[in-house]
Amino acid sequence: MKTVTVDLGARSYPIHIGSGLLGASVLYDPCLGSGQVMIVTNTVLAQHHLPVLQGALASRSPQTLILPDGEATKTLATTERIWDALLAARFGRDATLIALGGGVIGDLTGFAAACYQRGIDFIQIPTTLLAQVDSSVGGKTGVNHARGKNMIGAFHQPRCVIADLDTLHTLPDRELRAGIAEVIKYGLIADAAFFDWLEEHLDALLDRDADTLTHAIAVSCRTKAAIVEADEREGGVRALLNLGHTFGHAIETGVGYGAWLHGEAVAAGMVMAAELSARLGQLPAAAVERTRSLIQRAGLPVHAPSSLDADQFLALMAVDKKVQAGRLRLVLLRAIGQAELRGDTDPGALRALLEHFPRGP
Amino acid sequence: MKTVTVDLGARSYPIHIGSGLLGASVLYDPCLGSGQVMIVTNTVLAQHHLPVLQGALASRSPQTLILPDGEATKTLATTERIWDALLAARFGRDATLIALGGGVIGDLTGFAAACYQRGIDFIQIPTTLLAQVDSSVGGKTGVNHARGKNMIGAFHQPRCVIADLDTLHTLPDRELRAGIAEVIKYGLIADAAFFDWLEEHLDALLDRDADTLTHAIAVSCRTKAAIVEADEREGGVRALLNLGHTFGHAIETGVGYGAWLHGEAVAAGMVMAAELSARLGQLPAAAVERTRSLIQRAGLPVHAPSSLDADQFLALMAVDKKVQAGRLRLVLLRAIGQAELRGDTDPGALRALLEHFPRGP
Repeated sequence: MKTVTVDLGARSYPIHIGSGLLGASVLYDPCLGSGQVMIVTNTVLAQHHLPVLQGALASRSPQTLILPDGEATKTLATTERIWDALLAARFGRDATLIALGGGVIGDLTGFAAACYQRGIDFIQIPTTLLAQVDSSVGGKTGVNHARGKNMIGAFHQPRCVIADLDTLHTLPDRELRAGIAEVIKYGLIADAAFFDWLEEHLDALLDRDADTLTHAIAVSCRTKAAIVEADEREGGVRALLNLGHTFGHAIETGVGYGAWLHGEAVAAGMVMAAELSARLGQLPAAAVERTRSLIQRAGLPVHAPSSLDADQFLALMAVDKKVQAGRLRLVLLRAIGQAELRGDTDPGALRALLEHFPRGP
Repeated sequence: MKTVTVDLGARSYPIHIGSGLLGASVLYDPCLGSGQVMIVTNTVLAQHHLPVLQGALASRSPQTLILPDGEATKTLATTERIWDALLAARFGRDATLIALGGGVIGDLTGFAAACYQRGIDFIQIPTTLLAQVDSSVGGKTGVNHARGKNMIGAFHQPRCVIADLDTLHTLPDRELRAGIAEVIKYGLIADAAFFDWLEEHLDALLDRDADTLTHAIAVSCRTKAAIVEADEREGGVRALLNLGHTFGHAIETGVGYGAWLHGEAVAAGMVMAAELSARLGQLPAAAVERTRSLIQRAGLPVHAPSSLDADQFLALMAVDKKVQAGRLRLVLLRAIGQAELRGDTDPGALRALLEHFPRGP
């Protein structure tokens, strides 16, 4: 087991990474307050992993709430279901919520914890690679709105994160690849050596080799933790984590949530950001090609959806949270391993990118 | 104008208290970011005060959302109306919400700001005495749930608070008195000299004398600010602000929101807390009588509702947020000006109080 600590003063917490962690009571004990415990999960994970978790928490007699699987669950209405269940069972402010699931369950449960009686503890047990390297680290919680992804939410740090590689055994290949998109992102924005390592070890990662996965997750979490420590509430450097996300969110919203996985949309978005950086003369063509090539080898899309033309892209990007004072802010690349936030992107170059970027299904 | 500063590091903010402040652009300018501005208010306040505020903000072309008056508005459904309006108008993370109203508008708008895109700025313009001395100070935001008051919410500090005495001109006498209940509370929990001052100046306060009001509001805000500074998220001393509130919330829930005003329920609750303290042998009978007498002189209830018997009280108090590990925590008095949080209240003494406390309409 490797442990990465996110150092946020009174809100610091450990991320435990390894195999066989789900059933280890010893990991939960230090993070559970004196109050009641409720596990929130979905129908698929309840089948595969819930009994082990319930066993580990048996002495606390946890309640369980099982939600439908999928992004459509990540709504305010579902959050209300969690709040209703907590109130019906008379949970107090000393209660703990445990999120067993991917980003949907984690973001939703974290948001429910953030606003229940103005904030109770929660523990993240991310069961997808994407959630293990991204959404479970950094305290962003929230739900979708018909007009945009993650529009309603809060910053609320978990008490601990337990990333058990065993939960990845049942993860479909497509979702594993979507998680690798975010792993590649950490190389692109902050760590050229890790990008090199990924070029070398991508096949082992795709084969789910345990040591390779552990290293990739630990480096990703450490990179994200360092950025979150420097900027917990996204006033500055944390925005770099959004490489590919402004394009990606436009894709996800444009094609309808769930048609593209988040990681797939971000993968295409990172290629778009790299190519825009090259069009603006700040990134060599060879770096764009290495980016595109690694993403393609990971089985991820390097095209935009054919259903979205440039005008639709621009309209969708205009509602993104990264818009400030009416100006679109984009994360661009200076090199592999070096990203920067830009609020002055030439609109002509952006439109040219959106018009000429390859489209696919 | 008096200004009280709430010192919370990066989240510090001023509370301006005085007459003619609503239309003073100079007070808003330092608190407004670069983004769009939306005023949230209710139908009654829109008639009396909205034009002056819109005038002060004219250079920012604020949008306005006018909600129904009353506690029934303080729901998650209304919060969604605010979020829908913000998204429809494409408000970004640099936007500011302005709450023009009493506790309902303030708590609701603050919660909407707390969770819109994980937190945007907001300004409080409290228009009731209760909101000026209580809900607009300290960052507690939230909405009611069918199973309890303020069950869903967040801690989110305003950028500034503008308490304009002119907005109290249109306040009904009953609501003025409800605000005085919370003013009396500050004397009871932390400031015996202020309690003495209130005994002397209560009539001037009831007559809405401007200097008397300014002093009472400033002392109340300073007392609350000092407590919030010591304990922003209610881990300890902040709980003292809940004197009378556990009984009060039970009353409000038991008779149905709005039948008793919050301040009325807290007034009765403070007499109950004082009397329970005396029953436990920790407060002299004379102090109970001074408490009861001042509250009665303020035209506030010193009885509990006849519709609630002891069992109903106990059941309603059991869902209160102050319950920890299944144990009721109550704020009791050691003296006028000295409160303490107790988690070990003798259940027999509590039941005896609830059985014998006078009932009224």
